[in-house]
Amino acid sequence: MVAPVRVIPTAAKRASSLLRTIQYTHPPSCPCHSNPGHHHSAPGIVPRPRDAPRRYAIPTSVEVQKEYAFEMAASAIRFGPGVTQEVGMDLKNMGAKKVCVVTDSTVDKLDAMRQVREALAAEGIHFSVYSNVTIEPKDSSIKDAIAWARPYEADAYLAVGGGSVMDTAKLMNLYAAYPDADFLDFVNAPLGKGRPVDKPLKPLIAVPTTAGTGSETTGTAIFDLVSKRAKTGVAHRNMKPTLGICDPLNTRTMPAAVKASSGLDVLCHSLESWTAIPYNERTPRPANPIMRPAYQGANPISDIFSFHALRSTVKYLPRAVKDPDDFEAQSEMLFAATMAGVGFGNAGVHLCHGMSYPISGQNPGYKHEGYEVSVPIIPHGVSVAVSAPAVFRFTGASNPERHLQAAEAFGVDISNVKRESAGEVLAEALTKFLADLGDQPKGLKELGFGPEHIDALVEGTIPQARVLMFAPGLSKELEAERDQLRRLFEDAMTH
Amino acid sequence: MVAPVRVIPTAAKRASSLLRTIQYTHPPSCPCHSNPGHHHSAPGIVPRPRDAPRRYAIPTSVEVQKEYAFEMAASAIRFGPGVTQEVGMDLKNMGAKKVCVVTDSTVDKLDAMRQVREALAAEGIHFSVYSNVTIEPKDSSIKDAIAWARPYEADAYLAVGGGSVMDTAKLMNLYAAYPDADFLDFVNAPLGKGRPVDKPLKPLIAVPTTAGTGSETTGTAIFDLVSKRAKTGVAHRNMKPTLGICDPLNTRTMPAAVKASSGLDVLCHSLESWTAIPYNERTPRPANPIMRPAYQGANPISDIFSFHALRSTVKYLPRAVKDPDDFEAQSEMLFAATMAGVGFGNAGVHLCHGMSYPISGQNPGYKHEGYEVSVPIIPHGVSVAVSAPAVFRFTGASNPERHLQAAEAFGVDISNVKRESAGEVLAEALTKFLADLGDQPKGLKELGFGPEHIDALVEGTIPQARVLMFAPGLSKELEAERDQLRRLFEDAMTH
Repeated sequence: MVAPVRVIPTAAKRASSLLRTIQYTHPPSCPCHSNPGHHHSAPGIVPRPRDAPRRYAIPTSVEVQKEYAFEMAASAIRFGPGVTQEVGMDLKNMGAKKVCVVTDSTVDKLDAMRQVREALAAEGIHFSVYSNVTIEPKDSSIKDAIAWARPYEADAYLAVGGGSVMDTAKLMNLYAAYPDADFLDFVNAPLGKGRPVDKPLKPLIAVPTTAGTGSETTGTAIFDLVSKRAKTGVAHRNMKPTLGICDPLNTRTMPAAVKASSGLDVLCHSLESWTAIPYNERTPRPANPIMRPAYQGANPISDIFSFHALRSTVKYLPRAVKDPDDFEAQSEMLFAATMAGVGFGNAGVHLCHGMSYPISGQNPGYKHEGYEVSVPIIPHGVSVAVSAPAVFRFTGASNPERHLQAAEAFGVDISNVKRESAGEVLAEALTKFLADLGDQPKGLKELGFGPEHIDALVEGTIPQARVLMFAPGLSKELEAERDQLRRLFEDAMTH
Repeated sequence: MVAPVRVIPTAAKRASSLLRTIQYTHPPSCPCHSNPGHHHSAPGIVPRPRDAPRRYAIPTSVEVQKEYAFEMAASAIRFGPGVTQEVGMDLKNMGAKKVCVVTDSTVDKLDAMRQVREALAAEGIHFSVYSNVTIEPKDSSIKDAIAWARPYEADAYLAVGGGSVMDTAKLMNLYAAYPDADFLDFVNAPLGKGRPVDKPLKPLIAVPTTAGTGSETTGTAIFDLVSKRAKTGVAHRNMKPTLGICDPLNTRTMPAAVKASSGLDVLCHSLESWTAIPYNERTPRPANPIMRPAYQGANPISDIFSFHALRSTVKYLPRAVKDPDDFEAQSEMLFAATMAGVGFGNAGVHLCHGMSYPISGQNPGYKHEGYEVSVPIIPHGVSVAVSAPAVFRFTGASNPERHLQAAEAFGVDISNVKRESAGEVLAEALTKFLADLGDQPKGLKELGFGPEHIDALVEGTIPQARVLMFAPGLSKELEAERDQLRRLFEDAMTH
């Protein structure tokens, strides 16, 4: 077993960073100063100037300073079998009198929602249940939910479900707090306007019923923007749940297919945040701490969470998928999902997630086995994991040590592996892991994609600047980036 | 190297815990139901009923249920060389217009405070500086600070200094929010009245200038209650700083003696929280989540932080103490202090800390070298570390695996060590570590204590129920506990 290696600069780098810091009284070279509009974009996001895609990191006349600090913030997390029953007392302790409960029609029938109803009733809290959340929600269903939430004027929100439910609840809370805002106002630039969330929202308690998104710890909400054929979202620290209630009794109800795909999301959260470019390579250094993004790049705190989650996922996901009675493995996967949520919530994800959004959005007609839906669906976890072998083969050269440590977490004996093989070795370990898990597509081809789809997939990935900026080895020059993404999608056709 | 072992119950324990959970709809056996006054004690603290010292965990007619959940909460943490300069923007972003800056007369002259003054002035924020904080504060100096803070009516607080400064600022913030409260109202029971903090306080930003207490992440404030000759304090989640700004440039100013003693505090925070009884052995299970204490016992999240901090401290503290120019080691020690703060802030500490309070409070006249003070002083870190070899020799039998892993973190080859020697082996590793660090007392005798002081030391430790409840192996029966503590103090006389 191997200990998480910290992103520790060398002594020389530290000295020069110290020097930079001492010199840094006023940030003369921050691009924000020559681009006042920059200050109006959402904190938590480093938007790409529209006229210079992916070129914001390239110095022009003066050197753009790199980041010198990182920040960790996470929701309070409570973990234990049965903690769902406490939620009524929590809401009462927060002073809530009128609660908007958000769920989907499947979870609405499960024991988690029965407990929630009992717990709220026991405390005499008024509540209404919005149960129309759809899996992998589109903007239309988010807008539906917002239209429901605005007139209800809840004084607290309670999300009971998977990532789709938690993300929808975050957006209901956001847009109810801004009754006159247009939907695109807060959506990540460049697809939306990236308006900042400049006031606190109502308390939100998140009760995950899947072990996947880690959404209970983050301020991110993701949906399908149908008109652009791309997944995007809203990200801001103020959208973070006040409390995540992680009750392993609630994830026992996941069908095996959901266990697998949500677990693959955990796997990619941990691997991507573990291999993301380090925070102190990110540019520009924010001129105001409020502009320091939640996704900051790998940092010493996220590393601890991400690597821990990776080891747990490798150990427990196969058991959780194969044995519905393996309560220990399921419990550990919920814990891993939350740990990975803290990790990527502070570090970011990169290529698997950036590429997954067009993969899901441009689905040629694939229906994943085990998902009871009437329309074609590529579950989020499947769409991120399908490119993982190609992605880590590509990123391996950027930080061989970390890729080798990740391979070791999969049980690979790395004692005789050369540094230049790090990406390949991790890709092989991933391919084997996915194959052993069973029922996973062995590449984009099995999802129905062919060479004719690659251009559109690439163009659908390019706007994911918010995550692509953390992809190690990805060019910041648009045409070169396009070529790299094209080759990545080609490589992801078959494992 | 060894990976942190999680507090994972065995499969059998899990099954029975699951069973208990399913059975647990209403908690019929919770002592709170037969003791309504219990509900009025401070959340975050499980007080000892006054008429039954240390007997609260003993079942009477019905079985007292054990805890089944844990909760992690921590301040947002920002870390980086130079981040102090951002504090003016942070306070402005929070809407602060009139800030109470808390420091001590030494730090007031340092670069950290110069930067703070400049940063606040640059944002046009009005502020006043209270610089009368004393090291290892007594209730009298806390009361002074509160008397200053109440009429000032700050809308935010900024603490710049070590644990004494941060703790004083927390108490200024608390008592200014309750202008009519008596000082003992909020002090931990049984020494104080343990009144709950039932409303949010003003934002508090903490800028540590020592790498020790981790106070920037916790809701705990400690002081000397002179009339009782005991250290005690106030503990509540609402007292947690909003943001901890950890700037390794600020800890370079620590004298070597302060580096050593504050580092020893980190060492004991990590070792004590790592070896604390597990959260799911704590009784009683809280009837309301608001009564779940911040100090919960070792849990899977605190374990990650505590063990990481332990390894870092063993690696970097000797370097940080010996070489004032080793900026990497100093930076890592600040990071370790913060990690340990999150660890013990959610798990608790036990015997080293419980015993340290009377050691400091009943100081026979020792002045620690390198501390520029006019009165005798045993620095907090020295008073916790001096008993550490005796403590872990005693606790070793409770959880040999964890004590062996800790010994391994000190570089001990544990491959041939027997489980029953775990405590002894860790005690030896600690003794060697303390001796190698230099200038540390080799036991209580060197602090001026003799056999004649032991009874008073024991009686000064007994009231520390808040931390002693996490001491593995300590009897819950008062006379037996007294005997154990007496033997611990005797063993701590010389290493």
